[in-house]
Amino acid sequence: MTQRPVHPRDGARQGTAPDLVILYGWHPVREALLNPRRRLRRLLATENALRRLQEDRGDLRIDPEIVRPAVIDRLLTADAIHQGLYLEADPLPAPSFSELGPGEIVLVLDQITDPHNVGAIIRSAAAFGVAAIITTERHSPTATGVLAKSASGGLEHVPIIHVRNLGDALDALGRDGVMRVGLDSEGPAVLEETPLRGPLALVLGAEDKGLRQRTRSLCDALARLDMPGAIKSLNVSNAAALALYVARRSVSGDPR
Amino acid sequence: MTQRPVHPRDGARQGTAPDLVILYGWHPVREALLNPRRRLRRLLATENALRRLQEDRGDLRIDPEIVRPAVIDRLLTADAIHQGLYLEADPLPAPSFSELGPGEIVLVLDQITDPHNVGAIIRSAAAFGVAAIITTERHSPTATGVLAKSASGGLEHVPIIHVRNLGDALDALGRDGVMRVGLDSEGPAVLEETPLRGPLALVLGAEDKGLRQRTRSLCDALARLDMPGAIKSLNVSNAAALALYVARRSVSGDPR
Repeated sequence: MTQRPVHPRDGARQGTAPDLVILYGWHPVREALLNPRRRLRRLLATENALRRLQEDRGDLRIDPEIVRPAVIDRLLTADAIHQGLYLEADPLPAPSFSELGPGEIVLVLDQITDPHNVGAIIRSAAAFGVAAIITTERHSPTATGVLAKSASGGLEHVPIIHVRNLGDALDALGRDGVMRVGLDSEGPAVLEETPLRGPLALVLGAEDKGLRQRTRSLCDALARLDMPGAIKSLNVSNAAALALYVARRSVSGDPR
Repeated sequence: MTQRPVHPRDGARQGTAPDLVILYGWHPVREALLNPRRRLRRLLATENALRRLQEDRGDLRIDPEIVRPAVIDRLLTADAIHQGLYLEADPLPAPSFSELGPGEIVLVLDQITDPHNVGAIIRSAAAFGVAAIITTERHSPTATGVLAKSASGGLEHVPIIHVRNLGDALDALGRDGVMRVGLDSEGPAVLEETPLRGPLALVLGAEDKGLRQRTRSLCDALARLDMPGAIKSLNVSNAAALALYVARRSVSGDPR
């Protein structure tokens, strides 16, 4: 699981802020150890968990501190299932907005809080080679194992940029030449018929509230996914997958 | 929420089996009362819930039995949040397989158990005008409010056919001229490049296990969704939405 790191506002690597990602539990920690792009800082492990890790792979890339489970318990919330593993690491290196190439897509999440949905979105983002996910420090899901499980390894492939103010980030994206398209089931145009160009930011809102007013006003276009059936809106992770599919056909290039 | 009704094996309306759908909680019961296609049998309501229903809409289409909450408690599992409403109804009328037109799509779910995923799939099915969802009586998610919430009204739009044996149902679909395409991340062909014709059955397996051997052997084609990024498989509801999108472009017609 990831806990929100403190990130520079506009996603640029400024390096001085105390960025920190906290991962725990067997799969997330194992995947981070296997990921050469993930810079490790500190690994706490119980004796049993460490033995299991070493059987799974010899080189851990970091010297673990062997601790009792209670030590890890104290570092996490009560419901966190850590399985004896706790890792502090750097966030994945994220591109600054001005570095995004014409074949690149980023996802912007406006207060999507359900960890199943955010996890599934991270997984789809990894599957579609999305360059980064931009979300707010507040109103993003709290660290639970549900998100990591739903992300199914995606956390090690897509940098997540936490910003203090989403409007400012959208503003910065625009200044850096990124086309910002908001998904909106009441949008005036259909996404398939909207001329898209990369670098592209697809902006998704929460299911109940949709895009906030300022988010909406900072998009270059608003578009909907056209549904032929009785229900006109999809689950937000389903909508994200579909929007990425449609966008990938217009904005193609080497995915990261 | 739906509890699994006993359905005739092949989805034909044979009428003698004691089909029964149990719905509870504010939204599912309200939506069923609003749906003229949903035949109602018995409504239990607490005094408060009944008042709220009557304020919301005058005509309930059925005479409610006013009960104490404990009466409903006893009819459901302990964790069921019924909000004082319990409805017994008929399943939505489902087309028999031989009635499916060339523009129609059905979804076949092979032991997908996560209620978030099944709910999101029902919602997407309603959005894409899917004619029916076919699933097994066993190994489908138990009745929880999570499924109904994730389905977001979709339960009133897509008939769900519960079959005892999925292989037999796939066999029957084939005999009735329905093309059966199994989604398989290791599939030999890409779905977009697979010639599809309607009526079409899209067959989806569980995330961890995929399609079972017999299910796989009864498909006319196996196909994968091609992912450009680092992760090659999507969350199953995301995959379902994408497959429906791709299939709708080939198999078009009047969605139900």
